[in-house]
Formats: sequence, structure tokens, C-alpha cells
Amino acid sequence: MVRYKATIAYDGTNFSGFQSQINGRTVQDEIEKTLSKIANQAIKIRGSGRTDAGVHALGQVIDFSWPFERVPEKLRFALDTQTPADIAINQMELVSDDFHSRYQAKEKIYEFRVDIGKPRSPFRRFYSSYYPYELDVEKIKRALPDFLGTHDFTSFCSGKSVVKNKTRTIYEATMEMNEDKDEIVFTFRGDGFLYNMVRIMIGTLLKIGNGRISPDAIPQIIAACDRNAAGPTAHPEGLYLKEVKY
Amino acid sequence: MVRYKATIAYDGTNFSGFQSQINGRTVQDEIEKTLSKIANQAIKIRGSGRTDAGVHALGQVIDFSWPFERVPEKLRFALDTQTPADIAINQMELVSDDFHSRYQAKEKIYEFRVDIGKPRSPFRRFYSSYYPYELDVEKIKRALPDFLGTHDFTSFCSGKSVVKNKTRTIYEATMEMNEDKDEIVFTFRGDGFLYNMVRIMIGTLLKIGNGRISPDAIPQIIAACDRNAAGPTAHPEGLYLKEVKY
Repeated sequence: MVRYKATIAYDGTNFSGFQSQINGRTVQDEIEKTLSKIANQAIKIRGSGRTDAGVHALGQVIDFSWPFERVPEKLRFALDTQTPADIAINQMELVSDDFHSRYQAKEKIYEFRVDIGKPRSPFRRFYSSYYPYELDVEKIKRALPDFLGTHDFTSFCSGKSVVKNKTRTIYEATMEMNEDKDEIVFTFRGDGFLYNMVRIMIGTLLKIGNGRISPDAIPQIIAACDRNAAGPTAHPEGLYLKEVKY
Repeated sequence: MVRYKATIAYDGTNFSGFQSQINGRTVQDEIEKTLSKIANQAIKIRGSGRTDAGVHALGQVIDFSWPFERVPEKLRFALDTQTPADIAINQMELVSDDFHSRYQAKEKIYEFRVDIGKPRSPFRRFYSSYYPYELDVEKIKRALPDFLGTHDFTSFCSGKSVVKNKTRTIYEATMEMNEDKDEIVFTFRGDGFLYNMVRIMIGTLLKIGNGRISPDAIPQIIAACDRNAAGPTAHPEGLYLKEVKY
């Protein structure tokens, strides 16, 4: 048996998330179904982490063991052309047996897109989270650096999470407005992210931009270690898993 | 009765085209349904022209008569918020009684997007026409100016068209590659376009880029006045009605 690592992209709109579940179409199920057909035996994959229903991926990483060595590009092509059109297999490489896409991930980069156009663009309805309210971008820019560094991010983690250690390190937290000034793209790079973490960070930043939370409140919200201290969870359609580094 | 002109955008993916038809969901039906509900009486709209199933609009223009004068922005807002999310009402203005969105259109601008990335982007599958074959962009650039000017475009018109006068004037025919070099955007500006005209022009240009039609062949293809002389009809999902000028 050998092990392959693949970098994949998917449009999360019509998926109930990445991970296999009893009901609903998932990315994992679609890929496992295709790989099992190609290998003519049951193949299971591991992902660098889950993504929720509606969340997209530009560079999710998976790995799986395979019965025999094959030219990576041929395996990539076979998998890419046989998976549905909302999944793309962008890269494939042979890795050592002990490679693990989740345990060995060193950094993740997430992007979050907010559509602030008026009216809402029909083309972004599944690809950007719509925010039609007043937004002072300068306040958001002031708050963003307060996420940097190593913190207990309990306040920015869904209550449903079962993870014990909620300390994570954020290396990068930036925002950029597009040329037409109708979409904001946030980028977060860190050693790992808790369940719903980016979406709660965005929900909080949008409240800051809207004047309902102070731009200086992030340190206190982090210190509270209380999910209720932060803002709401932003919608999934704006979120993209952009890159996983090893 | 007064008359309003509206500029609208729509994601054509889930429409059987712009124009009302017996079966299938259409842009016209959705807008008429909403306007009739707001006015509490049957309202009919006219469009600057049809778009086919799967074809998008960034700036389609419609007009309709309305029982009484209303602040345009209020009517725009009411219509925009009550139409489905794949339609956006971007502008609304009161026009003179004799305004006609089709007969008075002076120029139209179409955009056509071709996805040349490998593999195909899951995010463009409904928004760009995929062309995975060899493409010499220089050959296409050489051929494009041959569309400019006034010509009988019978060769670039669907055989299903019932229009008699097939002479049209093209003012602009350009292409641009995006930064990532994985998508080409074509722009065509003219006094009018025949049925499937842009899609047949693109189908022909892609054959030129692929080396199966000479880059100098456009004048002969035009002169032939024969649909069979041109290339195939490109897929609808790359086509956008970008602007209508009056």
C-alpha cells in the first residue's frame, strides 16, 4: 500500500459539508465513491479538517492509502474527471506512509468574502455573505490586529465543539476591498481554527463595523472566554478554506 | 399610466431564458408576477431582447407601463426585494410614454467568458464556458478585428432565426486574459446581434485558436452567408448581456 496526498477545490453550495454523514451529500462521500470505483475496492480518505454545509474550498487537502503505486498525474486526472463538476482535484502527490493531512497540518488559511453591494449581486448569492447595513471599514481595520498572536479562543468557538484545548495562534488577519468597492475579502492565517471560529470572528467584526461593538473590544471578548461575549456566526457561503500548509 | 425603465441583472443558470414560454421558469415571468402583485393588477414587461437558457445578464433593460407615478427608487427597492435572489433590479427610472427597450436600443455590449484553467474551476461551471484544448491566443487576437464593421452576419446566425435583415455593425471586438491566465473575457459591442451570434463567433474563434480554422478565415466565412461555414455554437453559460445603450 502507498499513500497519496491530493489538493482539492469544491463549491460547497450543494454539499452538506465535507465530512461523511448519514443524510446528505458530502464531499468525502463523493470522492470515496469515485476512488473506490477506480481502485475496485473500498477506499477511505482523510481531510485536513471538516468544512460546514455551504462552505467552499480552494485548497482543501486530503490523503488516502492506495493498493499500488501509480503516476500521480494519472490518478489526479482519473479522479478529477470522474468526480462531479463541483469538485476539482488540483494536485496529487505520492507521500510517505506516515503522512496525515489533519495531524500534520501546520497552518491553515481561510478567506471570507462579504458582499456589500446594493443591491445584492445575483452572481454572489452562494459565494459571498451579504451585508447590506452600514459598515465603517476603518473600525474593522482597527480591530483586526487584535486577533493576532496566541490566545484562548473559547469566545470564538461554537458551543457544540468538543475540543478541549482552545488555544490557537493567528499569524495574519487582514481585509481588502475589491476594485468595485462592493466586496470585502478577509484573510486569516493560523496554526489551526476552532469550530465556526472564522465565522464568529467575521460576525463580530461586522458588528464592530456597524457600530454595535467597540473597535477596541476584541481583547476583552477574547479574555471573557465566553461564546456569548462575541458576535453572531456569519453565514457559511462567504467562507473558503484557501490553503493548508505542512 | 406612466412608463418605467429598469436595468436588471440575473444569473441565467436556473432560467429557461428571459422570455415567457409555456414551460419553464423565465426572467420575464418572475418579474411580471412580482410587478403584478405590487400593482395589484396584471403588468407586462418588454425586454431589450431575449437571452437563452443559461445566459446571464449584467445590464439587461426592461420597460413597463404602470398605473400611477411612484418614486423610482421605491419601486426599484420593492421589485428588487420581492423578486427571487437570482434577479437583481439595479436601476429604475421614469421614462417618456414612447420609450421602448427593444426598438430604441442603439447598442448592445456582450461579454463571453472562457475558462481555460486545468482542471476546470468548480466555481465557474455555470459562469464560464470551459475549453480544455490547446489555444493559441495570438491567432484569436489576429482574427478578432475582422468582425468589425458592417456585414451581413448570416453565417453567424442560428438557422432558427426568422429575422430577414441580417446586416449588423460591430464597433468593438476584443479579448483579455485575466491575471491568473486561466480565463479569457471577450467583449463585443454592436448595434444589434442576431440569434446565437456571439456564441457562434466564439465557437469560430475557439476553432481558430485551436488551429482548425485559419486566423484569416473570418472575411470568407462572413462572405459565404452560410451558417455551415462558421464554427459551432459555444455553450450559453459563458455569455453575459452586459449593457444596452439608448
